Amino acid sequence: MYMFSSYMKLLPSSCILSTNMDSKEFRIRGQEMVNYIVDYLENIRERMPMPNVVPGFLKELIPDEAPLEGESWQEIQKDIERVIMPGVTHWNSPHFHAYFPTANSYPAILGDMLSDAISCIGFTWASGPSCTELEVSMMDWLAKILQLPKHFLFSEQGKGGGIIQGTASEATLVALLSARTNVIKTVKADNPDLTTGQILDKLIAYTSEESHSSVERAGLIGLVQMRTLPTDDRGSLRIDILEETIAQDQQKGLIPFFLCATIGTTSTCSFDNLSEIGPICNHHDIWLHVDAAYAGSACICPEFRYLLDGIEHAMSFNFNPHKWLQVTFDCSAMWIKDRDLVSGAFEMNPVYLKHENQGHAMPDYRHWQIPLGRRFRSLKLWFVLRSYGVSGLQKQIRKDVQLAHQFEALVRDDPKFEIVREVTLGLVCFRLKASNEANEMLLKKINDDHRIHLVPSKIKDKFFLRFAVCATSTQPSDVGFAWSVIQELTHSLIQ
Amino acid sequence: MYMFSSYMKLLPSSCILSTNMDSKEFRIRGQEMVNYIVDYLENIRERMPMPNVVPGFLKELIPDEAPLEGESWQEIQKDIERVIMPGVTHWNSPHFHAYFPTANSYPAILGDMLSDAISCIGFTWASGPSCTELEVSMMDWLAKILQLPKHFLFSEQGKGGGIIQGTASEATLVALLSARTNVIKTVKADNPDLTTGQILDKLIAYTSEESHSSVERAGLIGLVQMRTLPTDDRGSLRIDILEETIAQDQQKGLIPFFLCATIGTTSTCSFDNLSEIGPICNHHDIWLHVDAAYAGSACICPEFRYLLDGIEHAMSFNFNPHKWLQVTFDCSAMWIKDRDLVSGAFEMNPVYLKHENQGHAMPDYRHWQIPLGRRFRSLKLWFVLRSYGVSGLQKQIRKDVQLAHQFEALVRDDPKFEIVREVTLGLVCFRLKASNEANEMLLKKINDDHRIHLVPSKIKDKFFLRFAVCATSTQPSDVGFAWSVIQELTHSLIQ
Repeated sequence: MYMFSSYMKLLPSSCILSTNMDSKEFRIRGQEMVNYIVDYLENIRERMPMPNVVPGFLKELIPDEAPLEGESWQEIQKDIERVIMPGVTHWNSPHFHAYFPTANSYPAILGDMLSDAISCIGFTWASGPSCTELEVSMMDWLAKILQLPKHFLFSEQGKGGGIIQGTASEATLVALLSARTNVIKTVKADNPDLTTGQILDKLIAYTSEESHSSVERAGLIGLVQMRTLPTDDRGSLRIDILEETIAQDQQKGLIPFFLCATIGTTSTCSFDNLSEIGPICNHHDIWLHVDAAYAGSACICPEFRYLLDGIEHAMSFNFNPHKWLQVTFDCSAMWIKDRDLVSGAFEMNPVYLKHENQGHAMPDYRHWQIPLGRRFRSLKLWFVLRSYGVSGLQKQIRKDVQLAHQFEALVRDDPKFEIVREVTLGLVCFRLKASNEANEMLLKKINDDHRIHLVPSKIKDKFFLRFAVCATSTQPSDVGFAWSVIQELTHSLIQ
Repeated sequence: MYMFSSYMKLLPSSCILSTNMDSKEFRIRGQEMVNYIVDYLENIRERMPMPNVVPGFLKELIPDEAPLEGESWQEIQKDIERVIMPGVTHWNSPHFHAYFPTANSYPAILGDMLSDAISCIGFTWASGPSCTELEVSMMDWLAKILQLPKHFLFSEQGKGGGIIQGTASEATLVALLSARTNVIKTVKADNPDLTTGQILDKLIAYTSEESHSSVERAGLIGLVQMRTLPTDDRGSLRIDILEETIAQDQQKGLIPFFLCATIGTTSTCSFDNLSEIGPICNHHDIWLHVDAAYAGSACICPEFRYLLDGIEHAMSFNFNPHKWLQVTFDCSAMWIKDRDLVSGAFEMNPVYLKHENQGHAMPDYRHWQIPLGRRFRSLKLWFVLRSYGVSGLQKQIRKDVQLAHQFEALVRDDPKFEIVREVTLGLVCFRLKASNEANEMLLKKINDDHRIHLVPSKIKDKFFLRFAVCATSTQPSDVGFAWSVIQELTHSLIQ
């Protein structure tokens, strides 16, 4: 224990000189920040997409302690470029091709600004009626754009509905926990002598070997075994392997209860076959959750909607408008077929959260999610859907897919390289026709060079590079630039 | 299934007219939004704190579908007052006295604006070095302001460190899951034949009967029994009941492994006795998590720091700067004593998230939290700590506590009323000296009246009203106003 005596003086409050920003100053600083945002985003291609700093760089740039007295905004503002920007990974740079995109747009930023101003914590309907109801409506709007089955819509007066989660990881976890609660209840009803632990030891969840790490992590949190099933040579989970595994597991006395399928895997953007595995899940009372975090956005275009064929078999479905639908992070859209099964897993009703209208026409979203509090995130979704219109959003998706095919063609033209998986959307998986080590060296050269940024992945022990079209501002010339950098560095590697 | 044919036309992208907002327009709209925010917050006392709408009001005000073509910002902007504001619960109104405060300030809003602009998803160090490192530094700054034990600081080169979670619920859950993983590992090491389920059936977690519902909910998610222990007549969990319960549970063959203590409960702002229960937890290898969501902020004032006496016994500690430290939601500060025990519960390392610097000098925060992605929330904390300075933040806390005592004095002066619990910080629990029903009627009258907003709670079957000082702008005259409304409505009730 130690004492920072400077903070601990007992001053009468009247003696304290505060330099808090007042509303008059905020009008000015807010405008300056708006201009800073525009200047940053308009000129982002001049910054290296991945910064050249080493761990620990930042603490050398700032004091070890917070100031006792307030500082002027001028002092603070100038540290944005001095302290923060040197260590920023610029996800919106047109030379950033790592992971998957994170969306960003001016209407979404306006939505978050308004959300911050209102700062209602919408855990119940009463704590923010507009916060709850706009979300209900926006999730119905999105469901219609995606042509989701009617049973996912709140307005259909059934048991379905949508919610904005923070991330796809949380959506997967909520689905798994709901399925777990449900299966434990069912098994207990038939076998009242079994303890929760005894039932838990029998539960088995499934996902494909190519699904995101957050699925396996949901299993860890839910404390259930997660079996990763092999995929076919296009990375798709198919009926044969699923049926065989279920039969084997049932023979062992295990209870299959949950399957997380992926539409657009992180490694290669592959697609599990929902039309095949959906009916099997339904037949065995296995909760089918569909994670379309990245690819879901593309399904607003009619030419890609087929990717969701079979979605009618799912108990829950999720995709991230914050990836590819111009909504700034965080906005992960999740629909559930039976909201009673979800809220049944989480519902707590202390007196201080009760209100007259609960359980009536509108949901209390706190029962559908892991956190209690929640921001007014539907504002940014509303602003984006209205400002772009569906056609404007489709246009962005199509542009990015075209750019991916442009990159694919460049790779295919070069006999030193190969394409790893069919290119369907905005991701191209490619590699040198050489050893894993050679590809690892190439990746390292690319990222050490700092002109573009990529991340790798590995499938069935084959290491490859991922080229994702990420920024809204990425143009054909940026794709050409990226390929020229890769060719130059490949050349230096081979020499 | 249905088809919205209007969205589904296959138009070549060149035919689509988009009205997306460009940077030139955003400079204007951003300034307008800044001015709207100021006008909203400066004039918020003219709005009813709790809106007078019924569930379902909003869907009547907007179309059933998203537009195909983009709309102009003028169209969208005018709907903020028409659609959203009628249904907003104004948490920042000086007449809002429900729940606990949600902080809001201009420097914090600027921080969120910048975070949105950068929109890096900082799940690993590499995906946003500044995002990770500013958070490490800000959590150390905060730890020093609160005089936390050194073992919670990252800069001390031990195993400790801080992280910004979204909510206190998530912090409690992360603590419980870490404790669960740890105890299962330990028990399995000694009893390799026990299954996870068999161990789980023996685990028992504790909390007090006055702790927040999210603690019990963490038990549901973690699938462990949660025993709620009785408190003394000041609402405090004490040594005798804890020792007795542990002994009884151990005799039953149960394994106590986790205790969530509260500093500032939601119902009455009572305080568990950390100095008493901490050593008992340590002795029995029980993970002590301390939830100070509301009261933690007050501990930046030396006169309230005693509330955290005994915190050195905790394995993890959490409070919400987004409640009472001028940081706009969400910003929940959590410290852990041994980060290996936390990341050990969650760590997954797929190739696409690996980077050269992992496991080195700086954390990959994805291993410390439930979601994968994360916003750049430390920016708003940095701006607030620097703009207000510690003394400016202390001043706000002291003002609110003074206002609570002002309200307390008014209640005590009226023989029809009684104070339910000692007033320590910004919450006053009070009731009519009458039946629960009479108090319920009074609450209903107050909230139906719409001039002020309160929520109730219930302890040991006694229903009471909670008066929380919430808004930064609340002044002595607002407290007087609230009391006059309560007196007027009491009078009409008694007549």
